[in-house]
Amino acid sequence: MRDVTIREVGPRDGLQMVKSFCPSAAKQAWIAAEAAAGVTEIQVCSFVPVKVIPQFADCGEVVAHALLRPGLIVSALAPNLKGAQRGFEAGVHKLGYVLSASESHNLSNVRRSTDESLLDFKRIVELRNSNEEWRNVRLAGGISTAFGCTIEGEVSADVVMRLAEKYVEYGADELNVADTVGYANPGQVRDLFTRLRSVVGDVPVSAHFHDTRGLGLANSYAALEAGITTFDACLGGMGGCPFAPGASGNVVTEDLVFMFEAMGLRTGIDLDRLIAVREIIQEALPGEPLYGAIARAKPPKGFRAASSDSAR
Amino acid sequence: MRDVTIREVGPRDGLQMVKSFCPSAAKQAWIAAEAAAGVTEIQVCSFVPVKVIPQFADCGEVVAHALLRPGLIVSALAPNLKGAQRGFEAGVHKLGYVLSASESHNLSNVRRSTDESLLDFKRIVELRNSNEEWRNVRLAGGISTAFGCTIEGEVSADVVMRLAEKYVEYGADELNVADTVGYANPGQVRDLFTRLRSVVGDVPVSAHFHDTRGLGLANSYAALEAGITTFDACLGGMGGCPFAPGASGNVVTEDLVFMFEAMGLRTGIDLDRLIAVREIIQEALPGEPLYGAIARAKPPKGFRAASSDSAR
Repeated sequence: MRDVTIREVGPRDGLQMVKSFCPSAAKQAWIAAEAAAGVTEIQVCSFVPVKVIPQFADCGEVVAHALLRPGLIVSALAPNLKGAQRGFEAGVHKLGYVLSASESHNLSNVRRSTDESLLDFKRIVELRNSNEEWRNVRLAGGISTAFGCTIEGEVSADVVMRLAEKYVEYGADELNVADTVGYANPGQVRDLFTRLRSVVGDVPVSAHFHDTRGLGLANSYAALEAGITTFDACLGGMGGCPFAPGASGNVVTEDLVFMFEAMGLRTGIDLDRLIAVREIIQEALPGEPLYGAIARAKPPKGFRAASSDSAR
Repeated sequence: MRDVTIREVGPRDGLQMVKSFCPSAAKQAWIAAEAAAGVTEIQVCSFVPVKVIPQFADCGEVVAHALLRPGLIVSALAPNLKGAQRGFEAGVHKLGYVLSASESHNLSNVRRSTDESLLDFKRIVELRNSNEEWRNVRLAGGISTAFGCTIEGEVSADVVMRLAEKYVEYGADELNVADTVGYANPGQVRDLFTRLRSVVGDVPVSAHFHDTRGLGLANSYAALEAGITTFDACLGGMGGCPFAPGASGNVVTEDLVFMFEAMGLRTGIDLDRLIAVREIIQEALPGEPLYGAIARAKPPKGFRAASSDSAR
């Protein structure tokens, strides 16, 4: 009974950016509370080496706890084959792999070319297929910096199309296209997703926006107009942006839910319960600012969430 | 050479909301600097009784100074016939009149029914037409709370259509439709403006959004998609919202300019020079917070403004 799907990526993308250390118990409380509010998919951690991001040392524990939430799709990020293997062993339902459309950004991020990254993804697909128990794990091909890059500036849409086609050829179950550094504008979003959907056919495509330049919600609306119905977001826009002090990070989950529900689109998420989850984060990470408009302004008088209508 | 027109309303709508008193010299410097940055229309004050809003005691002086800016359309707000007469006498190029689509809001705001407000507008048109010197003053019919109201909640689109038709019948040269309290969502914006344009034909319609719930830019994009090309905005989103502490006021001028220029639409406004105008306001009103993303995050690497392309 959902028109759009909003996926929480805060426990991964938000926590990746913050300096504070989030205790496992708080992560679990956060994930459980969002699942209870109606969020059906949460990216709970990143299977990176512990020495690279100590925040994710407790991946196994967090995944195990999340798997107990009824109906929740438990996803995680894996930047390489080794991380993917850890993810499979932990029992995630979905793994997100990531490479950058910008060669320079990919080199700087994972120290290899995008072609090498693609071949690594191919090996991850083969690894999954080699083990009966892992066959149902969905593999999402992520394309970072798809709308621009802090090193190269403009990123060609042709490059994004080529990467998407390769991902599909190598066995990606879905694609996730990201405006990693907040460069996208609504016209570009509309054009890129329209073109991408014609290129990849039935393979589901989701959008991942950052709000660095204030356009996160406008870009989400533009993506919706281009037929995208699955969106990543982060509660409270947590994490900010390393390149823009004071700017929020991912598009804010509760603001995105509000926008769609106000438009009459069912997210299946209870907005009030979602907003209440901010308290868990504020308590666990008192030094980290939370962003977002709807938690502060409250919904309009007489506001009826589309999801609550359908529940009547 | 403009694809969209962004009108600065900060000296009126922004200053109307702030507690600090803005000296005339600062208003003049602000207006002059925005005109120099390429802003072609500025709402410079409101002809309300001085005892109601002392901030606007210097309307005559501010208008006289603004009229010296070459090519600038000098507009002002007039809430009633008496204010309009003062505006005509001051020599403005355009007067914005305002009534609320919500009866309760109109009663609370100007202590009369919307029908009485419309008749007052009719008298303003007659007053203008009665004087040879005033005949060229454009009269804009404003419809406040067109997307919802803090008193009534939902506002019917039928009411907005009726008011728009009456405005046109009584001689409005253009219409300005406002989401006064930040209730609008992009779907509603698209639908209302699409319908309104079919109702009022060739009469120009502009949009006025507040960013109370974070949807100001998404709503602007939705209005653009519905054919609207003229938008009100306020530098730094100054003024905030009395109903939502910490929320910005009008949609932020520089963010709106950035969005359109990034989309390849020429605003004719130099973004860097526009952002620099914030310093004038910060110096004059040090206690007032300024909002906005692009001033903080800076444009993307390799960003080419559409307006700068056309100037080559």
